[in-house]
Amino acid sequence: MEPPNRWLRCTLMCLVVCSGFSSSACVLFGRRINNKLEAKISSQGCSHPHKEEYFEQQVDHFSFTNSDTFQMRYLVSDELWTKGGPIFFYTGNEGDITWFCQNTGFVWDLAVEYKAIVIFAEHRYYGKSLPYGNDSYKDAAHLGYLTAEQALADFAVFLDWYKANTRGGAAGSPVVAFGGSYGGMLAAWMRIKYPNAIAGAIAASAPVWQFTGLTPCNTQYLTISKDFQAANQLCYDSVHMSWDVITRIGQTASGRTKLAQAMKLCNPLKTTADVDGLISWLAGSWFNLAMVDYPYPANFLEPLPAFPIKEVCSYFKTPSPTDDQLLAELTGALGVYYNYTSSIQCFNLSQDATASLGDLGWSFQACTEMVMPFCADGVNDMFYSMPWNYDAQVAACKAQWNVTPRPNWIVSQFGGKNITASSNIFFSNGLLDPWHLGGVLTDLSDTLVVGIIPDGAHHLDLRGKNKLDPPSVIAVRNQERENINQWIAEWWVNKT
Amino acid sequence: MEPPNRWLRCTLMCLVVCSGFSSSACVLFGRRINNKLEAKISSQGCSHPHKEEYFEQQVDHFSFTNSDTFQMRYLVSDELWTKGGPIFFYTGNEGDITWFCQNTGFVWDLAVEYKAIVIFAEHRYYGKSLPYGNDSYKDAAHLGYLTAEQALADFAVFLDWYKANTRGGAAGSPVVAFGGSYGGMLAAWMRIKYPNAIAGAIAASAPVWQFTGLTPCNTQYLTISKDFQAANQLCYDSVHMSWDVITRIGQTASGRTKLAQAMKLCNPLKTTADVDGLISWLAGSWFNLAMVDYPYPANFLEPLPAFPIKEVCSYFKTPSPTDDQLLAELTGALGVYYNYTSSIQCFNLSQDATASLGDLGWSFQACTEMVMPFCADGVNDMFYSMPWNYDAQVAACKAQWNVTPRPNWIVSQFGGKNITASSNIFFSNGLLDPWHLGGVLTDLSDTLVVGIIPDGAHHLDLRGKNKLDPPSVIAVRNQERENINQWIAEWWVNKT
Repeated sequence: MEPPNRWLRCTLMCLVVCSGFSSSACVLFGRRINNKLEAKISSQGCSHPHKEEYFEQQVDHFSFTNSDTFQMRYLVSDELWTKGGPIFFYTGNEGDITWFCQNTGFVWDLAVEYKAIVIFAEHRYYGKSLPYGNDSYKDAAHLGYLTAEQALADFAVFLDWYKANTRGGAAGSPVVAFGGSYGGMLAAWMRIKYPNAIAGAIAASAPVWQFTGLTPCNTQYLTISKDFQAANQLCYDSVHMSWDVITRIGQTASGRTKLAQAMKLCNPLKTTADVDGLISWLAGSWFNLAMVDYPYPANFLEPLPAFPIKEVCSYFKTPSPTDDQLLAELTGALGVYYNYTSSIQCFNLSQDATASLGDLGWSFQACTEMVMPFCADGVNDMFYSMPWNYDAQVAACKAQWNVTPRPNWIVSQFGGKNITASSNIFFSNGLLDPWHLGGVLTDLSDTLVVGIIPDGAHHLDLRGKNKLDPPSVIAVRNQERENINQWIAEWWVNKT
Repeated sequence: MEPPNRWLRCTLMCLVVCSGFSSSACVLFGRRINNKLEAKISSQGCSHPHKEEYFEQQVDHFSFTNSDTFQMRYLVSDELWTKGGPIFFYTGNEGDITWFCQNTGFVWDLAVEYKAIVIFAEHRYYGKSLPYGNDSYKDAAHLGYLTAEQALADFAVFLDWYKANTRGGAAGSPVVAFGGSYGGMLAAWMRIKYPNAIAGAIAASAPVWQFTGLTPCNTQYLTISKDFQAANQLCYDSVHMSWDVITRIGQTASGRTKLAQAMKLCNPLKTTADVDGLISWLAGSWFNLAMVDYPYPANFLEPLPAFPIKEVCSYFKTPSPTDDQLLAELTGALGVYYNYTSSIQCFNLSQDATASLGDLGWSFQACTEMVMPFCADGVNDMFYSMPWNYDAQVAACKAQWNVTPRPNWIVSQFGGKNITASSNIFFSNGLLDPWHLGGVLTDLSDTLVVGIIPDGAHHLDLRGKNKLDPPSVIAVRNQERENINQWIAEWWVNKT
């Protein structure tokens, strides 16, 4: 194994700037849409008629040095609504809002039941909601308004306007916020900061406590390791072994040639830095896989079979494998994640570096407010020594964006673990999800309530109903219904 | 009477830009300190040993286009504190923090009882907390960070730092926020937005609902009129009559000479615009007087006798007075407000135009977020027709600061009248106070509680105890103690 710093450098760079190779955190918060399967996805959500509209927003809500405005996109469907019905509001996260609309079938399922208006609001600087058009990502002067607080203010101002201008009868209707992942954090924070605007929030797989000082940095890789171990111990052992094997082989030019060939890489590994990149890409692949370990075939990050970790792990069959055996098994396993539809000939380590706007935007957010420490030690987990190095992140952020992270700000702004003065938030978490230990896992009060999906991955509950749904996700969705019912009832009581 | 627009123009300009002549709103939110009486004031508050310290703050908490920082001043006294004691935190408003410290004796009285740490935090852009030094007020590019949200973020970040770095045992202590007037709004908003940071808030005379669409614009002048009427009807009638008399006399050059002489003005009235200024200054004087109608001699805006409205009204003795009689009585009455200490020879209408930084800062806030409509009709009140003209305000703000007000933002940001999801705020209001009808006057929930001081003016309860305190203010202070006790108890329960 190389010295920790060597791995660290790349992993941090990847997290921070999302360049070169994918890393777990980048991929999570800046997912790519697979256009080929869009039609299939569409059947899960966004399936009811809806309009794409725009609303003018201040670029800067909190100061008066800049009076620029921009057009925030939102999708709205009011055809299911009948008088007295609520408004279901998805707090868009780091990506094109149509993709979240397509992947959040639960909101559409509920909209039918509740006869609700459905709104998916796009997060500024993603999708088509670009404050400065093609210049939005030019530099920090243009991009600096990409913050969670500005986005929440967008949502609050929008809701006030929408309710005042929507068709009669909905002006007083309760709004329920929904969101998954960073969107779930936004939904929870929306209720914390704008309880006037929304009656309650479904915060699915929202790692609101994955910040400095709140949660140990090793939780994500620990969970992934457990997921693999649960599939079978040999799988865990083989992955655990793979880092040293790849590093050792990759030390020589001939070894790197062999690696690239054995692992069906599209491009050669020219240097040991390229080998670092391969390792980082591999770790990110397992991270992503754990997030989307759904009980039925799905295409969230990639088209995948049901329970893809089991499928991946089925490739590891040889105890104490030779190098060649291990590389062959590893490559077969990777195919489950990257090539389930047999559409690619080789693995392209830089495929995430085509930098959809989502990736780039999240890298900026990770360099400013969203400082979420992560680490592994390779002893208690199946990864390698990857200590959290904040100074390296600061340097990388300075180099990439000329910004300095404010690692304590989110905790000051949103209350950290001291949020019991707030109410009406339902935190759901799947225990297979690498992010769940950064979430809220026990009830904090009568109205800050938790739903656990033991066999659920990343916000499984937000997906549309499926005949293969495990009972646990059905139960949590019913808990969510109960909470929504309470919030709506309370809203009407307070209005009278 | 001149056409409404004529008066309107000046009143608006004065509200907005605080130039030329004082107006009520300007004076309220940008008070001047009378240095002569500072020693006397000091006995009311700030009397315990305290240190003046500074804390580095981001100029812009909510975006990353500007990484400048500045030094926020705060006064801190921890000599009264013993382990287990709370932290009392004054959310500084639009002025030098030492002045608020001196005029908020109640916090010091409580600190002795509760063995509390006392902190008075200065609001950015006031006193010595100038983000850009002498350039702070140069233009909107420098001044644009003067907003309530930025100030609240200052307080939240400061408190997190202070609690982490204060002497042992206070890190977990509950913080109770205090504030009066705009400071009371900040205290309430602090609890609404940062309930993690503070256990509860005493919001004294906080017109949190004096915003567009929440409260009729005529409430302030209506209350002032009632205050004068309560002193005696003749007083009300004489003031009511005075506007027409002054306007009529002021139409000619000789009339203006006579006016200036009769009313002991320092400077001549050269034009009818100057006469408008006189009228605006007069209206502002009565506004201020109503705010400080305290039951004992005090020096909040000016050195004044006990119940100064009664004293002022005692000068109006002649029913159906001649012009000369009315002007003489008016001038005598004005002397109560401006010359109680007999230290001036003439009235200087532009004395508030020396523009302490406080005045100028508030004028910017009124041009951006703090759009608080006001009006009078001269029929239901003792003033003159002064309709609210938002367009004129917009134009004036554009001319003065090159900014456009956002009249609905404060309501979107802080919830308007829909704040029952929040908790632990005590709203006190004196019914003599011109601002009280813009405040919260009935309990909103078990923990959003109201205290009414029927014979109290502007945040009388925040002043130090006085042997002439009416029973009503003593009762409200005891209510405040009870609420503070509950908040503190709840805080410790939640911590265990």
